[in-house]
Amino acid sequence: MAIWYDEVHNDSTRFGCKLTKTLFVGQSDFQKVAVVETEALGRALLLDDLWMCAEGEEKTYHELIVHPALTTAPRIERVLIIGGGDGGTAREVLRHPEVRHVDMVEVDGMVVEACKEHLPSVGTAWGDPRLHVRIDDGIKFVAEATVPYDVVIVDGSDPVGPAVGLFNETFYRNCARLLADHGVFVTQSESPNVHREVHLDMVRTLGKVFPKVHPYYDTISIYPGGTWSWIWASKGTNPHEPVLERVARLEDVTDVYNLEMHHGVFAVPNAIKRALRSS
Amino acid sequence: MAIWYDEVHNDSTRFGCKLTKTLFVGQSDFQKVAVVETEALGRALLLDDLWMCAEGEEKTYHELIVHPALTTAPRIERVLIIGGGDGGTAREVLRHPEVRHVDMVEVDGMVVEACKEHLPSVGTAWGDPRLHVRIDDGIKFVAEATVPYDVVIVDGSDPVGPAVGLFNETFYRNCARLLADHGVFVTQSESPNVHREVHLDMVRTLGKVFPKVHPYYDTISIYPGGTWSWIWASKGTNPHEPVLERVARLEDVTDVYNLEMHHGVFAVPNAIKRALRSS
Repeated sequence: MAIWYDEVHNDSTRFGCKLTKTLFVGQSDFQKVAVVETEALGRALLLDDLWMCAEGEEKTYHELIVHPALTTAPRIERVLIIGGGDGGTAREVLRHPEVRHVDMVEVDGMVVEACKEHLPSVGTAWGDPRLHVRIDDGIKFVAEATVPYDVVIVDGSDPVGPAVGLFNETFYRNCARLLADHGVFVTQSESPNVHREVHLDMVRTLGKVFPKVHPYYDTISIYPGGTWSWIWASKGTNPHEPVLERVARLEDVTDVYNLEMHHGVFAVPNAIKRALRSS
Repeated sequence: MAIWYDEVHNDSTRFGCKLTKTLFVGQSDFQKVAVVETEALGRALLLDDLWMCAEGEEKTYHELIVHPALTTAPRIERVLIIGGGDGGTAREVLRHPEVRHVDMVEVDGMVVEACKEHLPSVGTAWGDPRLHVRIDDGIKFVAEATVPYDVVIVDGSDPVGPAVGLFNETFYRNCARLLADHGVFVTQSESPNVHREVHLDMVRTLGKVFPKVHPYYDTISIYPGGTWSWIWASKGTNPHEPVLERVARLEDVTDVYNLEMHHGVFAVPNAIKRALRSS
């Protein structure tokens, strides 16, 4: 008997994978954590029964949450990651030799431990001495920290459960305060199809905090609506002027990101442009 | 009891919608044709049990199979559509006032009749006097036709069943012969994730026939891998020089296509670039 697991979106569409093995199931203080093996996409992490990351599909998400920011911030010595418990975001950040210090603040230690053990192909940079992992509340961390970062990346889950505080103006203002003047802020910003209002609200709210706010998009088959979005924001840097040497250095190692993709993902579909103009 | 229908991809992933009604089921000489009502995405057409088109999701496919070609071909008076039985492609072609004559050659009359009756919101241009629908074999049509077209659009289903002959060099050579020298050819070219080898083969095969061949990509949640591709080809025209007046005229009516998207969709992910370079 084949075992399928489907994530259901709004009780009306669903995406499922055939499972070959369950590797880990645990209940942390924050959420249900599971790692399974799928037939099509390798091993996958689920949080509260939602697909978060699968080996055969994670490159798009992790390359795109990192490289548009890491190629456009003029300096990238100090990087802060909020969330990112599977280690994929840190892995991509640490591909840049200019990066000297990464603080990764993940609220749920069980996610980090489960991914270190069961998803080692995603988090390949845990041993990098530049990476400093703290199991702590990212919302509290950005409210209290004082040493500025060149790039701040918010790689949290959805605006329910432990990540809900990553989706409001107070949090964004603290991130902006913590960002060097030349710095770049980036956050995942939900499915532009299935969570369109959440996505639009994030663009609008970040627009109150940062002078430059640019949503961007790509396909991720395991996420609701088959697509995902991120928002790039800064106090003045231009998203369309990446440092070309940094882009070129990535060409041999990335599956998705390259110079064409860098510019291409910032194209905003017409219906979203209209919705943002009318608000 | 909720009724779900899932399309299964390679027996290992699946995408499903909750159904509220079955509007039509028939068996034509070519395939099983069904129109259902879904809770999330409105009415949807299935051919041989595969999701083809849903009201809440069809704009991306139809705008992108049409406008990159129709904005870049210098002349767009005569357009040929092979397939396109739901009427969405013809609808987008006929938005361009320069278009004077459209031949649409669809092999399966049952698809056209079922869509006219049950998917009227997709095919809104059936009554346009510029549109000439023939129920006929598109492969034979392009082998025998002699009057050239400015744009040839291949909007067929997958390379199994009635559409299999739309995926080989002989067919492409006939399309090229039928295309005016300044003309543009475009075809849907399958999921770049789930059908990657089919997609790459199409790019390579078209490269033997046309000097300029450019694949392009966007998210379509109901299709395998949550994504889809098309290939734009010509004997010399440049895909990155659209006629700006034509693009601007579309801005108020399209949900996806605009000038940024025109350029953005042509960005090729790195893994696909590498695969094409190595072949």
